[in-house]
Amino acid sequence: MTTAALPVRVGLAGATGYAGQELIRLLARHPQFVLAQATGSPAATTTRRLPALARVWDGDVVPLDVAALAAASDVVFLALPEAASASVGPALLDAGCRVVDLSGAFRLRDEEARARWYPATGALPEGVAYGLTEFEADAIRQARLLSNPGCYPTAALLALLPLMQSGLLADQCEPVIDAKSGISGAGKAPTDRTHFCENHGSVAAYGAFHHRHTPEMVQALGGRRVTFVPHLVPLDRGLMASVHVRLTPGTAAAAVAEAFAGAYASAPFVRVTGTTLPEIRDVVHTNFCDIGWAFDADTGRLCVISVIDNLVKGAAGQALQNANLMYGFDERTGLL
Amino acid sequence: MTTAALPVRVGLAGATGYAGQELIRLLARHPQFVLAQATGSPAATTTRRLPALARVWDGDVVPLDVAALAAASDVVFLALPEAASASVGPALLDAGCRVVDLSGAFRLRDEEARARWYPATGALPEGVAYGLTEFEADAIRQARLLSNPGCYPTAALLALLPLMQSGLLADQCEPVIDAKSGISGAGKAPTDRTHFCENHGSVAAYGAFHHRHTPEMVQALGGRRVTFVPHLVPLDRGLMASVHVRLTPGTAAAAVAEAFAGAYASAPFVRVTGTTLPEIRDVVHTNFCDIGWAFDADTGRLCVISVIDNLVKGAAGQALQNANLMYGFDERTGLL
Amino acid sequence: MTTAALPVRVGLAGATGYAGQELIRLLARHPQFVLAQATGSPAATTTRRLPALARVWDGDVVPLDVAALAAASDVVFLALPEAASASVGPALLDAGCRVVDLSGAFRLRDEEARARWYPATGALPEGVAYGLTEFEADAIRQARLLSNPGCYPTAALLALLPLMQSGLLADQCEPVIDAKSGISGAGKAPTDRTHFCENHGSVAAYGAFHHRHTPEMVQALGGRRVTFVPHLVPLDRGLMASVHVRLTPGTAAAAVAEAFAGAYASAPFVRVTGTTLPEIRDVVHTNFCDIGWAFDADTGRLCVISVIDNLVKGAAGQALQNANLMYGFDERTGLL
Amino acid sequence: MTTAALPVRVGLAGATGYAGQELIRLLARHPQFVLAQATGSPAATTTRRLPALARVWDGDVVPLDVAALAAASDVVFLALPEAASASVGPALLDAGCRVVDLSGAFRLRDEEARARWYPATGALPEGVAYGLTEFEADAIRQARLLSNPGCYPTAALLALLPLMQSGLLADQCEPVIDAKSGISGAGKAPTDRTHFCENHGSVAAYGAFHHRHTPEMVQALGGRRVTFVPHLVPLDRGLMASVHVRLTPGTAAAAVAEAFAGAYASAPFVRVTGTTLPEIRDVVHTNFCDIGWAFDADTGRLCVISVIDNLVKGAAGQALQNANLMYGFDERTGLL
Repeated sequence: MTTAALPVRVGLAGATGYAGQELIRLLARHPQFVLAQATGSPAATTTRRLPALARVWDGDVVPLDVAALAAASDVVFLALPEAASASVGPALLDAGCRVVDLSGAFRLRDEEARARWYPATGALPEGVAYGLTEFEADAIRQARLLSNPGCYPTAALLALLPLMQSGLLADQCEPVIDAKSGISGAGKAPTDRTHFCENHGSVAAYGAFHHRHTPEMVQALGGRRVTFVPHLVPLDRGLMASVHVRLTPGTAAAAVAEAFAGAYASAPFVRVTGTTLPEIRDVVHTNFCDIGWAFDADTGRLCVISVIDNLVKGAAGQALQNANLMYGFDERTGLL
Repeated sequence: MTTAALPVRVGLAGATGYAGQELIRLLARHPQFVLAQATGSPAATTTRRLPALARVWDGDVVPLDVAALAAASDVVFLALPEAASASVGPALLDAGCRVVDLSGAFRLRDEEARARWYPATGALPEGVAYGLTEFEADAIRQARLLSNPGCYPTAALLALLPLMQSGLLADQCEPVIDAKSGISGAGKAPTDRTHFCENHGSVAAYGAFHHRHTPEMVQALGGRRVTFVPHLVPLDRGLMASVHVRLTPGTAAAAVAEAFAGAYASAPFVRVTGTTLPEIRDVVHTNFCDIGWAFDADTGRLCVISVIDNLVKGAAGQALQNANLMYGFDERTGLL
Repeated sequence: MTTAALPVRVGLAGATGYAGQELIRLLARHPQFVLAQATGSPAATTTRRLPALARVWDGDVVPLDVAALAAASDVVFLALPEAASASVGPALLDAGCRVVDLSGAFRLRDEEARARWYPATGALPEGVAYGLTEFEADAIRQARLLSNPGCYPTAALLALLPLMQSGLLADQCEPVIDAKSGISGAGKAPTDRTHFCENHGSVAAYGAFHHRHTPEMVQALGGRRVTFVPHLVPLDRGLMASVHVRLTPGTAAAAVAEAFAGAYASAPFVRVTGTTLPEIRDVVHTNFCDIGWAFDADTGRLCVISVIDNLVKGAAGQALQNANLMYGFDERTGLL
Repeated sequence: MTTAALPVRVGLAGATGYAGQELIRLLARHPQFVLAQATGSPAATTTRRLPALARVWDGDVVPLDVAALAAASDVVFLALPEAASASVGPALLDAGCRVVDLSGAFRLRDEEARARWYPATGALPEGVAYGLTEFEADAIRQARLLSNPGCYPTAALLALLPLMQSGLLADQCEPVIDAKSGISGAGKAPTDRTHFCENHGSVAAYGAFHHRHTPEMVQALGGRRVTFVPHLVPLDRGLMASVHVRLTPGTAAAAVAEAFAGAYASAPFVRVTGTTLPEIRDVVHTNFCDIGWAFDADTGRLCVISVIDNLVKGAAGQALQNANLMYGFDERTGLL
């Protein structure tokens, strides 16, 4: 944990994407962080409006200049494509900044895995922490470079880790993670995939067995294999992970409840709803992850439903929660 | 197969519900069936408009009178709650009509299962066939009472049965069926669950381990246990079953393709898309079921994606497809 | 303006409706108001969950008892049907509370008009102010009973009053107000009208020439007649008023800009976007009203686009903005 | 009217856009037209799938070669940008084909207006008819080049022309046409404007006083000025024109009903709903235009609501309806 002069000066690279805009919105009401510089691509700074943010934050989005950004900032949030993060992140560290990176550039610790799934990135810098806040708080407080989790891993791991850590997951069980995400998860770039008419009134599965969030989950689960199939559903924001697992024979319903209650007793942003299944609408525009489940005690089959806002707990919100820890603030600051 | 005087006179009970209206739309352009009488609840006949059907079908919806309905009809489609079907169906059979029932009243053959899941229904009449068209054509042709499959079982079974029948499913595999349905699947009655604002921008899981379509699937799969978790997604119509299974070790990718190609070589309404995953938007307002998959040959894990329009192939369309067989017509008549 | 002991104790009647829930969300982060008691119908208190509000506000919703509510509160927000407000509001005033009413019970000053449009309400109490914040601040500060404007009038009047007050509206012009609202505007009760499938993929006009918000607008416009046609559009929340008018011949484009700039120079929640037309997505979940326009100087025709979140600036947000003025707080408190 | 060898060979240029795909769907079930050749841009033919059309039409989309297209076709539907239509259309006429053009290239008869609004087009060929079917049937039957109306003019003119022709419109009345369209109206190209997240949960006005459909309406209304403001609403397909007018003082309610009943007595695709206001959901996926109204007899103010499917009656459906007339078929052929 670092003691810092207040307010902490924050830089933001990638201000005009969906996660970047959400960060601006959150930072604007944070009492200790102040947004000192926001950068975007030259095109974005001239042609894209941020009308929703008028009077929330009225600063200018300027072209990215790493030296200028470093000079203006104590900590920099990177909401960039991973190749850009892989280049800009280490440069900012060298310049003495702390970094919170929202891309996948620094998530995988294994060199081989990183080379396969994120070929545009290089060696991992020193001082990287994986920012799944509820399970990595100590590492996060010390982090020089905070690697913020992917949206799908956030929802899925918060559902699975309590079961793993309490030893309830059956030995041979390979969890099936069937996930549903709003279209903002596909990014702001206009493509055939993000066209309104391709998604309205439809659902589409994609990336089965080949999504880059799979190795991230496997790493956090200590190598356990998972089946991960994401789907795009016709909503703007919000994400559900439906996690299908088998528990150790003989597990009682109470043990499931205890596993979750214990894991999240002091977690302000995880709301355990028990056997009431949570819905996406309960968490959008918040940093909450709601977790509930259905358990068939006779057979040991368990379905855990975990919902988040992909742009908040799945991106900007968790990033700010982590930055709060990095600077010794209450993790709720600016988020409740 | 029965030889019938043409055109065949059709009765419809439950004309104002979503499935009923879809049947009217389909029957209106069928060259051999003619809609002779349509009934609805007294409230429906006086207060509900069917403006979308003007000039498509301009008949009157009259209160249900079983004797009058039987007198007017050779075959009657029942789009009623199961308790009503359980009472009206046998009466119509006694009066000499053939019956196509869209409720769950006659789907489960096992008395005990039926008593548990459909307590408002009684003994099964003679001559019932289960109307999963692509696998039950012979029985369907002879049926006096056709029990039309549920929407979820239709999508899930069309994904699973080719794997079962070709012996590819691993012995111990209990399929995980994670399904997503549009809101029309929850019926036309206004409830908290069907309110626009409860569903827009949201996804909700429900009925995990306790949905009545589970025993229907288990029955068709010869007793194999499945995990079935349905979800409501914010679209009007359309349904996807994402089916997660394990195949026998050593299964080759080509064997998967052959299983589906073989099963549906002569099925006009199943489009096998191979490793291109189908989307709901491709099938809405049609009687098609599109089936594609992702296969991880190294581990034998397979994810099959099966999509239908829940009101067409999942209800009215498949009912008409079955009635075509019952009367010796080409099963495509009026559906393409 | 009243000087009050801090924090101010707030009561809320109608806590489980959409406006009520939004009020809870806003009050939870207000530094000077504290929610002391929230009431709902007996059914709501036992059967309806407010899962989205867990950890935001964890109080109980209790059955309405006017005496108990008055004893617990300095000021009470009424988010009730107008007949209930007409009865509860005066009783609370008698008990010494100040009241902020979100229904239409106290909006129309003319007895005859009120009898026609709100027959379930009675005589107007003393000390009523109409809470269109940007134009009634002085009256609002003194109000004992604050009558919060309707959602449609809020958007339409903020578009029209600057033109009226600067004398730009042509003498004979009767504005055409073509408005579009999300479905939450139709309330939380499940009806045919609020069913998901009746609205998804559709737009419906309703209440043309016969909506109760028409006389409210006419009153605020000093008797000028308007054509008002509202439409339901398939979104959860948000409202647009497209206002079509004619200006005095010879009006310059600069005069239009000046009229709006002048009217809202010190209004923190009205963002004037000039000839860039605002969109609903820019204002949802905020208390902003964004106003822009297209002007055809040659013919004097002007189209003003005004957008709000119907549950915030159109209901709970404006109510809180007004309560801030009533208690001498900065009107932005808890809203930005 | 031409007598043609049957079946009539149809060409289609622009097969992969939304209107083009809808034409394929409609032509596939037409008994007298047969789709002989469909063309698309080279990119479209190699990279875009039409999975929804499998088994409906299984032909190939080939690159556009005007000579080859002309040789294969008796009549060609052009679903192209107007500059392409302006070039391809006359060439096809020269080669002896008849042409149905869905772009704006040939809609405006006035040279000056065409030069202003469609600068990429040239002189008008001989034998052009404007294809507003219900009002131009005689000209359509003779047309060599049929210019299909825009989607907005179709809905607006079907609402206005009966009032004009029966002399009910007040002399000085300039109609206000406030229109709402689904996003498919913005085309298939991915842009910021067609991104899912920019439209979900939003409404956006655009093109006020500057939309190219305005001069098209003015031309059809004999020069009468209109205020036209279109809006994008979050639905895939469907369009509503809300038309606000003033009638001649003293007009009776019955006269309004008679004007519409008279105009559409023999129009199979216009359903007059009287004072029941039609909704978009009643007409999507059909060629119907539903028209209803609210009339305030005391003041002579009338609001006419006209709804169509922008891709059917607003594009492909009306084009086919017109082609039916051009070849002497019943106009309903293939459309009901």
